[in-house]
Amino acid sequence: MEGNSRGLESADEVLRRRAERVVPGGMWGHMNVARLPAGYPQYFRSARGCRLIDADGRSYIDLMCAYGPIILGYGDEDVEAATAAQRRLGDVMTGPSEVQVELAELFVATVPHADWAMFAKNGTDATTSCVTIARALSGKRKILVARGSYHGAVPWCSPSLEGVTVEDRAHIVYFDYNDAASLERAADEAGNDLAAILVTAFKHDTRRDQELPDPIFARTARKICDAAGAALILDDVRAGFRIDLGGSWEPLGVRPDLSAWSKAVANGHALAIVAGVDRYRQAAARVYLTGSFWCGAVAMAAAVATIRKLSTTNAIAKMAAMGQRLRDGLTAQSQTYGFSLRQTGPAQMPQILFDGDADFALGNRFVVEAMKRGVYMHPWHNMFLSAAHTEADIDDVLEATDGAFRAMRKTA
Amino acid sequence: MEGNSRGLESADEVLRRRAERVVPGGMWGHMNVARLPAGYPQYFRSARGCRLIDADGRSYIDLMCAYGPIILGYGDEDVEAATAAQRRLGDVMTGPSEVQVELAELFVATVPHADWAMFAKNGTDATTSCVTIARALSGKRKILVARGSYHGAVPWCSPSLEGVTVEDRAHIVYFDYNDAASLERAADEAGNDLAAILVTAFKHDTRRDQELPDPIFARTARKICDAAGAALILDDVRAGFRIDLGGSWEPLGVRPDLSAWSKAVANGHALAIVAGVDRYRQAAARVYLTGSFWCGAVAMAAAVATIRKLSTTNAIAKMAAMGQRLRDGLTAQSQTYGFSLRQTGPAQMPQILFDGDADFALGNRFVVEAMKRGVYMHPWHNMFLSAAHTEADIDDVLEATDGAFRAMRKTA
Repeated sequence: MEGNSRGLESADEVLRRRAERVVPGGMWGHMNVARLPAGYPQYFRSARGCRLIDADGRSYIDLMCAYGPIILGYGDEDVEAATAAQRRLGDVMTGPSEVQVELAELFVATVPHADWAMFAKNGTDATTSCVTIARALSGKRKILVARGSYHGAVPWCSPSLEGVTVEDRAHIVYFDYNDAASLERAADEAGNDLAAILVTAFKHDTRRDQELPDPIFARTARKICDAAGAALILDDVRAGFRIDLGGSWEPLGVRPDLSAWSKAVANGHALAIVAGVDRYRQAAARVYLTGSFWCGAVAMAAAVATIRKLSTTNAIAKMAAMGQRLRDGLTAQSQTYGFSLRQTGPAQMPQILFDGDADFALGNRFVVEAMKRGVYMHPWHNMFLSAAHTEADIDDVLEATDGAFRAMRKTA
Repeated sequence: MEGNSRGLESADEVLRRRAERVVPGGMWGHMNVARLPAGYPQYFRSARGCRLIDADGRSYIDLMCAYGPIILGYGDEDVEAATAAQRRLGDVMTGPSEVQVELAELFVATVPHADWAMFAKNGTDATTSCVTIARALSGKRKILVARGSYHGAVPWCSPSLEGVTVEDRAHIVYFDYNDAASLERAADEAGNDLAAILVTAFKHDTRRDQELPDPIFARTARKICDAAGAALILDDVRAGFRIDLGGSWEPLGVRPDLSAWSKAVANGHALAIVAGVDRYRQAAARVYLTGSFWCGAVAMAAAVATIRKLSTTNAIAKMAAMGQRLRDGLTAQSQTYGFSLRQTGPAQMPQILFDGDADFALGNRFVVEAMKRGVYMHPWHNMFLSAAHTEADIDDVLEATDGAFRAMRKTA
């Protein structure tokens, strides 16, 4: 390894230096650790269960789960056995495989609002497809979107305006998440041109407290769509299968017309799902949606195995319980050490912010100290539990966070 | 299998009937055989080398290569050994792996205009990213696109207008491929607001004769971009690595500023590549481009193995030679049997159309007869050779096409 011949540089530093030459900025997107405090490794060598090994061989309990895709644990044996069997047959071919039908049937049987399903590769593919299908059916154009919600990384919805034209967002009307009056005002603004309301499963914006959906807000969205003949689109890309196997708004009793899924649906294999009710079936068939790898059978076999395992085990309840164990432990530690935390959102998708920490100085210090003790946390993006996190793992996490709080108090 | 208990239905028919209930229209996109004559199987069981087995166990020599992704053959041993090794370590993790740097370095070393590279999942991701990067650098908006060229399946470029708004294409200006005067008129129309010219590697529109790029047209595109400070974007998604390892316009001596790649770059594993010259490096770093699975290491290991094998073997020359062998054989057969064919484009990406066949009646008949004889061809989309097609395979194809021509003549 090049790193070994340069005594002062770590393997991670060597890789960053090499990448700086051949990748713009050295790295891009949500996994760019330039967004994180110094000390975060950029490169990883391997992963198994809930553990990551970085390029320098350091091991971490991972509370990010690849920013969501890993729901049963890295390299889950059942998922990998299913993908190995499919791989021996074929993956991307000149048409789909039987497993595509099997997955569509399983998804429709699992998710109550899904009368049909289609498959793609990115969460952005799924949200963009839902918007296009809604417009195709209604012939209307306006899409209501919550300010600050993340729906993908293309011009109509990117969090950045670099390279975006005004026309890319000409028909996006903004409201405030969980604010029914604001949603009604946006619908009034759209008037007779309302194609859809697009909402995330809960408010999981970065750098802010998370909020579960207010039932009044959710029912208002449903009511507006029903009155206007518009589509209620649930963006379940980030939360899908971590809250409820039937979709994240099932516990609320509010069902969408269309839904976008990705991340965890195939335990880390690249897959996205667009699902919907019968009313949108013909419009979905008319819109031209396609991609070179969208019928790849291996990712579909992974999704079938993932959904089967989620539905036949207590995986979701376990993730919630482990998240609660972490939350309770952190609450106790923060009180012991005199820090004030806000832990928001579903326990299995925790957001942990410090009070009075607008610049994230405390949060950054905390996660760096936790990382030194073998736990990979994020200072301002929600984290993710997987079914591979055991009580013993959470207790190891809490031992590390105890050390982190203690180190912070010493130097406070 | 359900099919066996229903004597009259084939396995393919059973799968279609099941899919009809849970997938809009039963199937979507470019692999939907509703676009093809009756008799085409929709579902495939397995694939190896250049051979496909359909859901009913029938075997075909495949001239579609999954519509392009398969360039070394299905299940290529070197690619699969590389992916198996990476898979044992990790795939999608909480950050990229060393192989991401290795792939970026290899791509930059292989493709002369590439000073940097970034990775995504769909060809559409790559074309959309190039357009956004071009706008980010220039602050200008107009993108010149050839009428009928395919650049992806999202509203700004989809071949369908279902669900598309006027604003999605507000800044797209159209010209005719290979028509330098038409390109100049489009540039005049864009005026001082020209961000980019986006061109496919050659004219490979469906249902039409293919055209290699006219050098005057290519140099005109380069000259317009140089004069305006706009980006020449080469969409090499479909042709990339089948014409020239350095990019499909290398033989022309015209280099793009940005290029979009996908399909064949990882021999069937889901990957797309955005590459560019130094001038666009900072803009590429500023635009927010990301996806849940974009740092997946297995597809990158596949790309490294694919590029190494393409560069250390005569794969591209072999594909061209096998394509020429097919073309010559078909020319001779068509003369023997009294049919007039137009075989256009690069021999390794053949488009085969019958003269006087506006409704594709002859072409449809021909491919159905070839299919009955064990060869999977397409009546109006360009086909793809892979390095796994041997002389013996091409001779088998020609035996089938001889039978197809003979059957057509008998009933003519």
